Amino acid sequence: MAVTPEAPNCLTGVRVLDFTQFEAGTSCTQVMAWLGADVVKIENPAGGDPGRRTGATNPHRDDPYFLNYNANKRSVAINLKAPKGLEIIKALAKKADVFMENFAPGAIERLGLGYDVLSKLNPGIIYGQVKGFGKGTPYENNLAFDMIAQACGGIMSVTGQPDGPPAKPGATLGDTGTGMLMLISILASLHKRRETGKGVHLQVAMQDSMLHYIRNAFAITTKTEKPPRRAGAKLLESNNPPCDIYPCAPGGPNDYVYIYTSRANPQHWPRLLEAIGRQDLIGDPRFETREARIENEKEIDRIISEFTSKRDKYECMRIIGAAVPAGAVRDTVELLNDPNFEERGIIQKIQHPTNGPFKMAGWPVRFDGKPPVVKPAPLLGQHSAEALMDWLGMSEEQVAALRAEKVI
Amino acid sequence: MAVTPEAPNCLTGVRVLDFTQFEAGTSCTQVMAWLGADVVKIENPAGGDPGRRTGATNPHRDDPYFLNYNANKRSVAINLKAPKGLEIIKALAKKADVFMENFAPGAIERLGLGYDVLSKLNPGIIYGQVKGFGKGTPYENNLAFDMIAQACGGIMSVTGQPDGPPAKPGATLGDTGTGMLMLISILASLHKRRETGKGVHLQVAMQDSMLHYIRNAFAITTKTEKPPRRAGAKLLESNNPPCDIYPCAPGGPNDYVYIYTSRANPQHWPRLLEAIGRQDLIGDPRFETREARIENEKEIDRIISEFTSKRDKYECMRIIGAAVPAGAVRDTVELLNDPNFEERGIIQKIQHPTNGPFKMAGWPVRFDGKPPVVKPAPLLGQHSAEALMDWLGMSEEQVAALRAEKVI
Repeated sequence: MAVTPEAPNCLTGVRVLDFTQFEAGTSCTQVMAWLGADVVKIENPAGGDPGRRTGATNPHRDDPYFLNYNANKRSVAINLKAPKGLEIIKALAKKADVFMENFAPGAIERLGLGYDVLSKLNPGIIYGQVKGFGKGTPYENNLAFDMIAQACGGIMSVTGQPDGPPAKPGATLGDTGTGMLMLISILASLHKRRETGKGVHLQVAMQDSMLHYIRNAFAITTKTEKPPRRAGAKLLESNNPPCDIYPCAPGGPNDYVYIYTSRANPQHWPRLLEAIGRQDLIGDPRFETREARIENEKEIDRIISEFTSKRDKYECMRIIGAAVPAGAVRDTVELLNDPNFEERGIIQKIQHPTNGPFKMAGWPVRFDGKPPVVKPAPLLGQHSAEALMDWLGMSEEQVAALRAEKVI
Repeated sequence: MAVTPEAPNCLTGVRVLDFTQFEAGTSCTQVMAWLGADVVKIENPAGGDPGRRTGATNPHRDDPYFLNYNANKRSVAINLKAPKGLEIIKALAKKADVFMENFAPGAIERLGLGYDVLSKLNPGIIYGQVKGFGKGTPYENNLAFDMIAQACGGIMSVTGQPDGPPAKPGATLGDTGTGMLMLISILASLHKRRETGKGVHLQVAMQDSMLHYIRNAFAITTKTEKPPRRAGAKLLESNNPPCDIYPCAPGGPNDYVYIYTSRANPQHWPRLLEAIGRQDLIGDPRFETREARIENEKEIDRIISEFTSKRDKYECMRIIGAAVPAGAVRDTVELLNDPNFEERGIIQKIQHPTNGPFKMAGWPVRFDGKPPVVKPAPLLGQHSAEALMDWLGMSEEQVAALRAEKVI
């Protein structure tokens, strides 16, 4: 397997003080940890990140949801209501390169850990905040979750069947989609700071981030002045059939193959006909031009389905994908069970101390062929002593005293 | 408006040699340009990036699709089939910090511009490649587009109605979603290079990137060993009604409001009842616990819809959003026409030399309150002379000679 300890830890030496919870913030700091940063996740000793329990079916184990967004981090459990707890946070902030949080609007400031406070203690700090709605919107104090952002940010308006209601993608764009944009801004700011030494206050709203992911829909609106119509599995601007999913044997809910013929390549259509054994239709005027294919789309769908419905989706992908862009619709079980993903380190098997072994997706980008190594998410407070000794040079006695006082 | 020339150009001085086209690559390099890098887009003089024409309705104008992914870049049109053209590219590569491409598999290597070649000329180069499928998969030589990646990478399996076929999100996760993960890797590599001086070969597959955005679905599969069932607008693991869209007046295709009550906050349900004027139901045993609400979900939907269907979605958002997480489903026309996005610089008005004024979404993250300024995408070859003079110190005469020889 390609996962080796030599996978580059690009961010080694970068210290992240991590006040994130759930997903929009945790997805951002987890990637920093994957890439080598020392991410110290601050949690309240009474339960920690609520993401540990979201959807948990076993009260003694962290939910896989939590494990997927907090790998490679260290957990420090500190009581922020104890004055000493807050002092420790401020001491850690002095040592941090990056601070990141995604609490409800106003919460971090009420804790006395706003940008104004921390940037005075540490003028070089890169301070990131994710909220649901942007400063200066009528909703800036509202709570938001992934689905609210996807509704208000336009994503749902372009997802679903043409005659059906808006749908929410299964992908958590509001959360992870926002976390990635914040992370890009943090890394760019780290670059800048090497010259200036100065920190920065980074803020992003989940609603605003959604626009970034539907710029094709905006481009259509620029031309038509209308919102695009939802298009099922097709493109929003579908103008070169075939471009859709086709049913495969044995007819399960995900037994489909996507088939696309590019407008830019007129050879795709005859190549597709050959692949499905319908050379007889090459040159047929009903399908010869893009315009003709748009007019006879239903007949095209019937011809292709006749081929695909007799074969399973992988056979269809193998045969048709060799000729034109095509791909099987794969579900999470199929992906997790495909050994190829593990061999390449895209999915990695984790040994978690209480949850046992499980598989999760790691960082998909290869560095000189190697993916970063995924390590298990921390137990609550697992690194309280270790991290305070590392960052603040505390002695074992000092840590023991804090434990006795229930500060950590 | 918050857009000022002082918005931080974090990546000033970073030179990007940009061989990207369509979206997966262009989305990545555009953000570098937004953040201040000098992104020189190399295009063939005969038409340039095919994205300029994709869906174009006017043969004399670049399609808004292109304009949305190539803002703030410079365009250099070079004939790569002329030996001198290739020489110029190699000279530019020696000056570049980052090289980025997303051609079909093998194409850049056939041009003689593979990582092995360029890293010898410039050992510090950060060389990024986006392909459809990963090296080591059975499909590594196949073409892929956004929808193929979304099919094969699991996204479509968790998008759509419970009893309907898989759907493709309107968001282009296969393209922009992949481009953002590559960009994070590039910026982390730039950080590392400050110490080592060494470049790196970065590779990402669009299929692999999709797993990153559906980790919630994987977390569910870890518990159930089944693929999650598609859920319309609900959560894949929907276990605390209400959590759905509700129809609003006047009943258009996007006239819905999303309403969510968090499992973590038991006050949400009574607060919602108050907001919709149904205090009479507070304490009603049919809805008192999460389990009861799951059992009586249809009745809950009826009660809420009775309120929402008489009001427009913005009124619903205003009233209900003040009590619990709630948000109107907004479409691209509504977002483009909402002056608040322009006031905050989230959407910016661009003056394009041939297409005239139009609006587009910029980078949503604020740096000390300020968004990066969006400048129009370049015309084909608009900066050929200027960029060659900047990067290679060419004289006007040398540039004129290259023009005469039709190299540029």
